[in-house]
Amino acid sequence: MNQTEQQTIRLTSEIAVEPIQQMGGDHMIVAAARVSTSGPEALEYADEARRDEGAGLINYLLKHRHGTPFEHAAMTFFCHAPLFVWREWHRHRVGFSYNEESGRYKQLEPVFWVPRRERLMVVPPKHKPARPVYLPLEDDAAYEALIERSRHVYQTCYDAYLADIEAGFALEVARRSLPLAIYSSCWVTCNPRSLMHFLSLRTHDTEAAFVSYPQAEIEEAARLLERIFAAGWPLAYQAFVKNGRIAP
Amino acid sequence: MNQTEQQTIRLTSEIAVEPIQQMGGDHMIVAAARVSTSGPEALEYADEARRDEGAGLINYLLKHRHGTPFEHAAMTFFCHAPLFVWREWHRHRVGFSYNEESGRYKQLEPVFWVPRRERLMVVPPKHKPARPVYLPLEDDAAYEALIERSRHVYQTCYDAYLADIEAGFALEVARRSLPLAIYSSCWVTCNPRSLMHFLSLRTHDTEAAFVSYPQAEIEEAARLLERIFAAGWPLAYQAFVKNGRIAP
Amino acid sequence: MNQTEQQTIRLTSEIAVEPIQQMGGDHMIVAAARVSTSGPEALEYADEARRDEGAGLINYLLKHRHGTPFEHAAMTFFCHAPLFVWREWHRHRVGFSYNEESGRYKQLEPVFWVPRRERLMVVPPKHKPARPVYLPLEDDAAYEALIERSRHVYQTCYDAYLADIEAGFALEVARRSLPLAIYSSCWVTCNPRSLMHFLSLRTHDTEAAFVSYPQAEIEEAARLLERIFAAGWPLAYQAFVKNGRIAP
Amino acid sequence: MNQTEQQTIRLTSEIAVEPIQQMGGDHMIVAAARVSTSGPEALEYADEARRDEGAGLINYLLKHRHGTPFEHAAMTFFCHAPLFVWREWHRHRVGFSYNEESGRYKQLEPVFWVPRRERLMVVPPKHKPARPVYLPLEDDAAYEALIERSRHVYQTCYDAYLADIEAGFALEVARRSLPLAIYSSCWVTCNPRSLMHFLSLRTHDTEAAFVSYPQAEIEEAARLLERIFAAGWPLAYQAFVKNGRIAP
Repeated sequence: MNQTEQQTIRLTSEIAVEPIQQMGGDHMIVAAARVSTSGPEALEYADEARRDEGAGLINYLLKHRHGTPFEHAAMTFFCHAPLFVWREWHRHRVGFSYNEESGRYKQLEPVFWVPRRERLMVVPPKHKPARPVYLPLEDDAAYEALIERSRHVYQTCYDAYLADIEAGFALEVARRSLPLAIYSSCWVTCNPRSLMHFLSLRTHDTEAAFVSYPQAEIEEAARLLERIFAAGWPLAYQAFVKNGRIAP
Repeated sequence: MNQTEQQTIRLTSEIAVEPIQQMGGDHMIVAAARVSTSGPEALEYADEARRDEGAGLINYLLKHRHGTPFEHAAMTFFCHAPLFVWREWHRHRVGFSYNEESGRYKQLEPVFWVPRRERLMVVPPKHKPARPVYLPLEDDAAYEALIERSRHVYQTCYDAYLADIEAGFALEVARRSLPLAIYSSCWVTCNPRSLMHFLSLRTHDTEAAFVSYPQAEIEEAARLLERIFAAGWPLAYQAFVKNGRIAP
Repeated sequence: MNQTEQQTIRLTSEIAVEPIQQMGGDHMIVAAARVSTSGPEALEYADEARRDEGAGLINYLLKHRHGTPFEHAAMTFFCHAPLFVWREWHRHRVGFSYNEESGRYKQLEPVFWVPRRERLMVVPPKHKPARPVYLPLEDDAAYEALIERSRHVYQTCYDAYLADIEAGFALEVARRSLPLAIYSSCWVTCNPRSLMHFLSLRTHDTEAAFVSYPQAEIEEAARLLERIFAAGWPLAYQAFVKNGRIAP
Repeated sequence: MNQTEQQTIRLTSEIAVEPIQQMGGDHMIVAAARVSTSGPEALEYADEARRDEGAGLINYLLKHRHGTPFEHAAMTFFCHAPLFVWREWHRHRVGFSYNEESGRYKQLEPVFWVPRRERLMVVPPKHKPARPVYLPLEDDAAYEALIERSRHVYQTCYDAYLADIEAGFALEVARRSLPLAIYSSCWVTCNPRSLMHFLSLRTHDTEAAFVSYPQAEIEEAARLLERIFAAGWPLAYQAFVKNGRIAP
């Protein structure tokens, strides 16, 4: 195969988050918390059928910032997102494990991110960088121009990447040309406590006790994680929302 | 109930470790590692039926200290051990979560540790504190004396504890009299990577690349954890042993 | 020396915290935060003389929970406290480092804690364990009895400890008899972020956004740490207090 | 200013690491370790003048993997490196703190990485991706072509970035076009233990007990860190090298 022939690049706006496995549930959080006061008898609460008994306790734990019981559960996700999302995500160090596609060992696929048409992305006249709130893009032509500019840049980058590889250069040298828009896959494992911390910083919610201003794309990932969390740990999730979206 | 009546104390040497839940297995470690080179296709390996294909890779990961794939699995244990064991155990900070019986909220049970008859516990003539290796106790009478001394101390402590409580003192004040031999329950959640780190420091194995000299009681707990790990992650466990019992 | 001769025990209520070393100051927090927007120029702010310029920024960081700049500073303390304090303290895993006196390698000194006369320590009629608020002890005789009971227990424990040691038993076996009131020394290293987290959980302040109910003795240690923090990082400290004593 | 006028980009191969502050030294590691056996008296060793007494102990700590004493010291660096280096560096979660230039809040400078002429970068005929060892590039013309290709790609990317900004798009959207070769500044704080872990994985040394195969650019940063560490903690550093470059 002659890799220097221009390879077709793919543009997308999709962020993917798929659950791989999970452990525990609300009942395990409850049972772990009950060890404090019940010792060995707490095991009796480690029973999914008794989950609903724990609603009050879970709310209490979140309200008073007792965080450790939320670490006795875990979940793993497959996530597919552009590098600028991973750059932010990987800054979460505590309670997060990662294994990502390697640009040293693997030729990356030519899949690149472009903003959705409706994404708020125009800087307003009175812009506060620390609390970024953007405007919609009115002009369809400007969006088309953005997409065309993106396509041109990505193709240029990926062509150079392939040219390097064909010329015998190491992948680790060739990848320097790839743009932050390129996608990468990563497995992410966390627990309800670390996940709530992530959600508190990576979702924007005007009802939150501390309002965060995340970039829309990491928020898109966060909202997908949030849905999986809400389904697997409904009591913890409701208590998280009710108590101002602050991680305990 | 008149709590000042002397309550019967119980002596034991047992350390209990019981599995509560686990997530993942060797196949998940393999699949997480394959994300580096296979990206989204790595998901195909997340299949228990394909576990045995991964033996070589898991060995490679341990041999070359690639640790992160071992974080995409988890396990929770119920453990019952004396406080001097918990004091050591809780020093493991990374990849370990704990919820322990609270001496502020709960009256602790009068269960106390004594050494088994066969425990190596006599200081040898040429003792190196940093590499403690003890001798067996030859003298049955000395053992009996130790047990009687223990019983007397524990009873004195626990009587004072109950006397405080009956006099209206807070549990948090009363517990000052309890000895390190008293038992406590704790839930422990960790992952294969943090567990291997624990095993490398808390088991004594003359075949290990770095030989550790743990106290016998935390080693007893560690050996029970090791058995559960070996059953749930046989490939990771074998590779751990084969590669000098060093956590990746 | 005949160690079985009863050794005089010492009773105290003192918790000691002494600063050993520190790194950084408010200006380093400011400079680290300014890397976001100024890149290499942020270094210009790493100047103690410019500290006061940073007051607004530090307040902003705390208000909006931007925590990482508070990790570019550090402090080490020598602390002397009873074991029941260390049992709680060592549960702080993130951003805390410990080296403690070892009961396996060293014969512990016979120094034991007793409550101060004025400590609130009587359980009130309507006691909520999760929000423990105690009453003062009215009765001087009851206090005397508590001290005598303590002295008797501690002496009994320490005598047994020495008897074991003299009989040739390993320190790690002998220590089982020591009560939670015995003191231990520990070096603690942390950073302003982890310290603020500790203070938020280990001090009771009715003005705090989340009111905590710590045991008085760990609070005593926390208040000493707080004073050192306030002296070394006055802007960060003021902002912490002003923003509800929540760690960023 | 008309930002769409092509802005001149700058190419460089330099990785910069500059020390900002440090705390502790070999004597603090020694003193922290001596708390185990000396309790409060360990403070006497916290004296730079007594540093050399500690050589044997520090070697012992490294040889037997007693890691915690190496956490009672700290250092902060200013580092300037391309994004592909930061992507690897930020995966170090434990004992590492970061504040990096923000692509959301700041327009990034047009400084881009190219390989040095002498960098080993050609894939050999029998290439093992897991143990990458590259060949020198023989052909000067091929190097020139690589530089020209780089210049073209970087200019195309940066022009698109500026065009987006001028068209009113948010920086967070515009940055998608920037390549991994672009430089970013970051403050990094760590301690000797976490630094040794970093060095063990990010330097290639055939004498090491576990030989790592890092990318040359993160190794360049690691070697600069190593020099600062060696100057500030000479005993710890010598012991690290002597004991197979394994972090304790």
